[in-house]
Amino acid sequence: MTKEISLPVLILHHALPCLLFLLLGVSNAASELEDYQTYIIRMDHSHKPASFLTHESWHRSVLKTLSYPANDEEMMLYSYNHVIHGFSARLTALQLSEIEKSSAHLATYPESFGKLFTTHSPKFLGLKGKSGLLPAASYGEGIIIGIIDTGIWPESDSFNDRGMPPVPERWKGQCENGTAFSPSVCNKKLIGARSFSKGLQAAGINISKEYDYNSTRDFFGHGTHTSSTAAGNHVPGVSHFGYARGTARGVAPRAHVAMYKVLWATDTEKSAASDVLAGMDQAIADGVDVMSLSLGFGQTPFFKDVIAIGSLSAIRKGIVVVCAAGNDGGRQTIYNGAPWITTVGAGTLDRSFHSTITLDNGLTFKGISYFPQSVYIADAPLYYGKDDLNKATCNLGALNPDEVAGKVVICDNTTKIDVYGQMEEVDRVGAHAAIFLTDTSDLYSDDYSIPSLTLPTSSGILIREYVTGRKKPMLKTMRFVLTELGTKPAPQVASFSSRGPDPISPGILKPDILAPGVDVLAAVAPNIPYMEMGNYELVTDYALYSGTSMAAPHVAGVAALLKAVHQDWSPAAIRSAIMTAAYTIDNTGSILKDENTGLLATPLDFGAGHINPSKAMDPGLIYDINFQDYVEFLCGLGYNEKQMKIVLQQSQWNCSQEPTDLNYPSFIAIFTNETVKNFSRVVTYVGEKEASYRAFLDCPMGMKIRAEPSILTFTEKYQKQAFVLSVEIDGNAPGMIYGNLKWIDQHNHTVSSPIVAIKT
Amino acid sequence: MTKEISLPVLILHHALPCLLFLLLGVSNAASELEDYQTYIIRMDHSHKPASFLTHESWHRSVLKTLSYPANDEEMMLYSYNHVIHGFSARLTALQLSEIEKSSAHLATYPESFGKLFTTHSPKFLGLKGKSGLLPAASYGEGIIIGIIDTGIWPESDSFNDRGMPPVPERWKGQCENGTAFSPSVCNKKLIGARSFSKGLQAAGINISKEYDYNSTRDFFGHGTHTSSTAAGNHVPGVSHFGYARGTARGVAPRAHVAMYKVLWATDTEKSAASDVLAGMDQAIADGVDVMSLSLGFGQTPFFKDVIAIGSLSAIRKGIVVVCAAGNDGGRQTIYNGAPWITTVGAGTLDRSFHSTITLDNGLTFKGISYFPQSVYIADAPLYYGKDDLNKATCNLGALNPDEVAGKVVICDNTTKIDVYGQMEEVDRVGAHAAIFLTDTSDLYSDDYSIPSLTLPTSSGILIREYVTGRKKPMLKTMRFVLTELGTKPAPQVASFSSRGPDPISPGILKPDILAPGVDVLAAVAPNIPYMEMGNYELVTDYALYSGTSMAAPHVAGVAALLKAVHQDWSPAAIRSAIMTAAYTIDNTGSILKDENTGLLATPLDFGAGHINPSKAMDPGLIYDINFQDYVEFLCGLGYNEKQMKIVLQQSQWNCSQEPTDLNYPSFIAIFTNETVKNFSRVVTYVGEKEASYRAFLDCPMGMKIRAEPSILTFTEKYQKQAFVLSVEIDGNAPGMIYGNLKWIDQHNHTVSSPIVAIKT
Repeated sequence: MTKEISLPVLILHHALPCLLFLLLGVSNAASELEDYQTYIIRMDHSHKPASFLTHESWHRSVLKTLSYPANDEEMMLYSYNHVIHGFSARLTALQLSEIEKSSAHLATYPESFGKLFTTHSPKFLGLKGKSGLLPAASYGEGIIIGIIDTGIWPESDSFNDRGMPPVPERWKGQCENGTAFSPSVCNKKLIGARSFSKGLQAAGINISKEYDYNSTRDFFGHGTHTSSTAAGNHVPGVSHFGYARGTARGVAPRAHVAMYKVLWATDTEKSAASDVLAGMDQAIADGVDVMSLSLGFGQTPFFKDVIAIGSLSAIRKGIVVVCAAGNDGGRQTIYNGAPWITTVGAGTLDRSFHSTITLDNGLTFKGISYFPQSVYIADAPLYYGKDDLNKATCNLGALNPDEVAGKVVICDNTTKIDVYGQMEEVDRVGAHAAIFLTDTSDLYSDDYSIPSLTLPTSSGILIREYVTGRKKPMLKTMRFVLTELGTKPAPQVASFSSRGPDPISPGILKPDILAPGVDVLAAVAPNIPYMEMGNYELVTDYALYSGTSMAAPHVAGVAALLKAVHQDWSPAAIRSAIMTAAYTIDNTGSILKDENTGLLATPLDFGAGHINPSKAMDPGLIYDINFQDYVEFLCGLGYNEKQMKIVLQQSQWNCSQEPTDLNYPSFIAIFTNETVKNFSRVVTYVGEKEASYRAFLDCPMGMKIRAEPSILTFTEKYQKQAFVLSVEIDGNAPGMIYGNLKWIDQHNHTVSSPIVAIKT
Repeated sequence: MTKEISLPVLILHHALPCLLFLLLGVSNAASELEDYQTYIIRMDHSHKPASFLTHESWHRSVLKTLSYPANDEEMMLYSYNHVIHGFSARLTALQLSEIEKSSAHLATYPESFGKLFTTHSPKFLGLKGKSGLLPAASYGEGIIIGIIDTGIWPESDSFNDRGMPPVPERWKGQCENGTAFSPSVCNKKLIGARSFSKGLQAAGINISKEYDYNSTRDFFGHGTHTSSTAAGNHVPGVSHFGYARGTARGVAPRAHVAMYKVLWATDTEKSAASDVLAGMDQAIADGVDVMSLSLGFGQTPFFKDVIAIGSLSAIRKGIVVVCAAGNDGGRQTIYNGAPWITTVGAGTLDRSFHSTITLDNGLTFKGISYFPQSVYIADAPLYYGKDDLNKATCNLGALNPDEVAGKVVICDNTTKIDVYGQMEEVDRVGAHAAIFLTDTSDLYSDDYSIPSLTLPTSSGILIREYVTGRKKPMLKTMRFVLTELGTKPAPQVASFSSRGPDPISPGILKPDILAPGVDVLAAVAPNIPYMEMGNYELVTDYALYSGTSMAAPHVAGVAALLKAVHQDWSPAAIRSAIMTAAYTIDNTGSILKDENTGLLATPLDFGAGHINPSKAMDPGLIYDINFQDYVEFLCGLGYNEKQMKIVLQQSQWNCSQEPTDLNYPSFIAIFTNETVKNFSRVVTYVGEKEASYRAFLDCPMGMKIRAEPSILTFTEKYQKQAFVLSVEIDGNAPGMIYGNLKWIDQHNHTVSSPIVAIKT
């Protein structure tokens, strides 16, 4: 976006996606003794001398033995015991080299910084009624969702504990005291609140009270939004300045929430890898059931990716880890694509926000608007000032205040996309309102500084005809704060949603699943200005946010519900149920479309499809994966022994002789010279009655698919059956081609898996 | 109020109470033949020659026989057959005199104009949860409430017919076609829609499309508000610009609504008596069960009062007639005080609307504000400019834009009450926000043109101390759109609520009952601007209105619920139940207070007390009144034969030899020379089990009360018992003195009646 932001508080909404990141893997530039840097040090815990009772005491002793001012109190940031074995510390280059000489040393990561996966603009969640899963799961009762995010606004009505069950006895977490955060704000809904900022502070970044609270209190609104989306209680009658009015309710409204604040709104918003790891470490120690991360570091091999490594530790403990896929929108932009993570893309909702205008000749148009006031404009003069090219340009400086003040200005989009610049101009010259004729828009909900809407250029033809044909063209009426439901097509793959293939692990189809991530209404921090209006700043307690950040907590909520129903299911089983129950047909009966192009989207965009919670409760078959399966998967990546150690966090493991397929509920075949690829899979029956499944294959031109056997018969629950899927492409196949496998039984179970073939 | 309104649409809110009225009884000034005036002509229907099959044909023939251009099509406005016998027509003075010579002629009323009983400012209804009456009455199912008002906005969500029973078969009403009103907008909720404007048009007033719809569509919002208050369906999540957020629901959410539009938003808002009568006539013909009128004509004897006369016709048909008591606030300002009407005063709700400010020294204050935007102001300079009298004056012209622009201006109330003028001044000079220190305020919700609040002068002491003691006094934060529930004391008698005694009939204590009438949230016409904000006009679909206009439909709704439970009860029985179940103790345990003075209110202010719907369902005893009782009451007024005929609408009646008391559920004794007054009453037992009632008497100093017998025993339902209440005052009694009679049985019934004694 082109705009300059001067007010620090507003950076919140504008600078969100522009954070520093991808620092992982950058070589250590520090060379002077005094030049301290933060490093995360992985240690081989099999080397811990028996004399140390705890890992932490060992970690501290390592620091104490270093050559230079070896004060472990000052140097050590965190000792990690659950998420990894190791610690983070501020070290000089010399000290680091001393540690690295130790045989117990496994790996070093220079501190890195992650980013949130919200798009620029704050934006809703329309949970579609009560599904069968909700009552079956007692609305998530007894399940604990850990959110790794920007903190939480505990007084939000979404975190009231009306109807909540007691805090589970197994819970080990706590609510930490801090700035504007008393432990007493915790209740049966919000059961844990911790914050982690040592890494950030070690990087010389102060947590200034102007930019954040030095506590788990949310300054951004982001963590409040994701938490309330996953597990907020029912709150009727909320809206975004009147838009999307309705009841806000988390996906699992009876689940407990624990917040681990690791993302800070400092002068430049940052989350430090050492802090994220510390948050994940604590969440595992505390006993969360589901962990949701709406943030990411760079695209980097698993052995360098703190979220990938931390997640594997969590998965081993049976914790479902759900992560946002990222907001980079193009091919090969997947973050958090490790096969043990549930990687979530963003879909649109069937809802849009409007203004309507009626011209004096009776013509009425409906356009997109988020103008936050219920303004009514009647009988106002229209202004359409054409330039030399016969276009009405509203670029900066183009308008004359004397001519347009008090009028409704019509703007052609002459520069493509820069509607924001036009908004600035019409605002500058005191226009009464504006009509932007454009098919693309860079306006976000907090940009609507004067009453205005965007209309497609096709509507513009009629409007121009009217205004150029009249001496005194008049706008009869203009209305705002209109919400339309049931808009079509929906869902679509959000334009910003990161898309596969995942360059780090192209053999696994990512994202896994699509969930609502555009204009999601949820709780936010109510005293952080949302936008400017004239000389005033507006606040709201619920707001529309967009991003895969918003999609991930939806899936975390569904995972909590499934966990409540199927307490013995592994994280992989829960993800399998979510994926094979997903739908790929929109509300017009078409395959899901890509918001960017309006064309059909593919599994590289939407994974298995859009989440369908109630169907996921009773998937029929699951593709389960155990820890050894992940080991085999890693073996197949060709990692060296040290890299394997780092990811697996154990000294010994077995790789079978021949590479095996990970038992994933989706298929991606990358062809170089060969034309056939076989996938081995084992499905576990989770229904109650005897069932016979038949394979239904959707083969596009140029692709042949076979399942062998094509009938799977189950006589009892948890029975397993293996099959081989073979995918064959011929010379007519395009570069990317998409098929589908459906196992369908007589009990109304359809177990669907996407199939992607890529020719390289 | 001092302000000048230039925009015609805004007149709606400001000029509402400034209507022409009280024209009834003005002598006919027309003398020229061509000077047509509208008259309502009452005819003695016993004089109708048998040759006329209908009253209307007779009425038309009367017009045809007149000396001058006797065109009945042009002259006749309405023929009335239910509400009165007679017609309205445009007549010359000569024509009128011809009619008046006829022996069939009973009375002539020159056209008159009524007014709405909304206060200046739009303002909520907080129906306090589901009471026992609601389910018992099936939420009013099957009952039809006729509203005589400004029309209705049929698309308001309050009039959706989700869950509504079918239209009753007995219903004879219809939905009339008209401007922007298709009969198809009617449904199972809105079952009737008619409009009446012939009288208004005959008075030369055009219904201009700029000011109103020539149909039953509401332009004002007033009729939409009263209808949705009485019988609106559930609508969650509505608010007045964020204030009073919650679920809107009428008192009888399953009752049907029929709208009779008789009040028009013309260049000067008017309702013509001939139109009001026509609306009432139609409502009676259509078969409504309850009629609600939030309007009134002047204080005039019953034989000249169209609402009094029309109501008696309705009551005879078993229709409960509920009317607003008026908004004149002082003693002897009761409108619609006829003893067959349920006359409703307005009470406050336990809710207030706020802004909060925090000064840089940490001091926090909460003040009244209706500023309609969720603005957040932080770290703004405060401005306190003292004048010669050491006061900060903000009267018009007092502030210098250069000094205060962008600042938060503090204003002392130097002129009493005129805070509106200060608002204009701070707005004029571009102040960022304002703090008005005042104990009285003339600000209405639509006056808050800049972010501002009022604070009591007691808070002002601390604020002044801070601002005068600092070089750069700063406001730390200022927040808006805050709603507080449970405010105390509540309810209070609204300052504007008209108070007794009723000069027309001082022997009947009026008002009868108090119901919520201050800041009631209900549906309004959503495209009529509510207020101005800068250069824009704001609209809303639900808004806060105040007035006895808002109180009356609450009681109409309760009457509908009682009618659903007790289908055989007379209008008087329903009113008796409502009155004897009312409460007079507020939420601090005190007698209801008067909002004007803060002192204890009296039955002359609140009648029997504040409505208590669930208790009214099972009142124990009722004071019933039949038509002959009203005849006896009228006999006691000393009306002549013609006046009796006009009110009773029959040629014959019996007056008993000695004047009898009307069997009213309240007592008012007016003493001139005597010191004792006896009231005869008969109570009917409406409980199921045998019951014994004992009289409990609340006698203040100077007043003695006795009930004889003091124990009433009932062995079966509908058994009647008589008693005599004697009220005696002594020389120490003040001019007005208030007691209470309570009949209490062993089944938890308390039947309470107020007693007022006045020494003249």
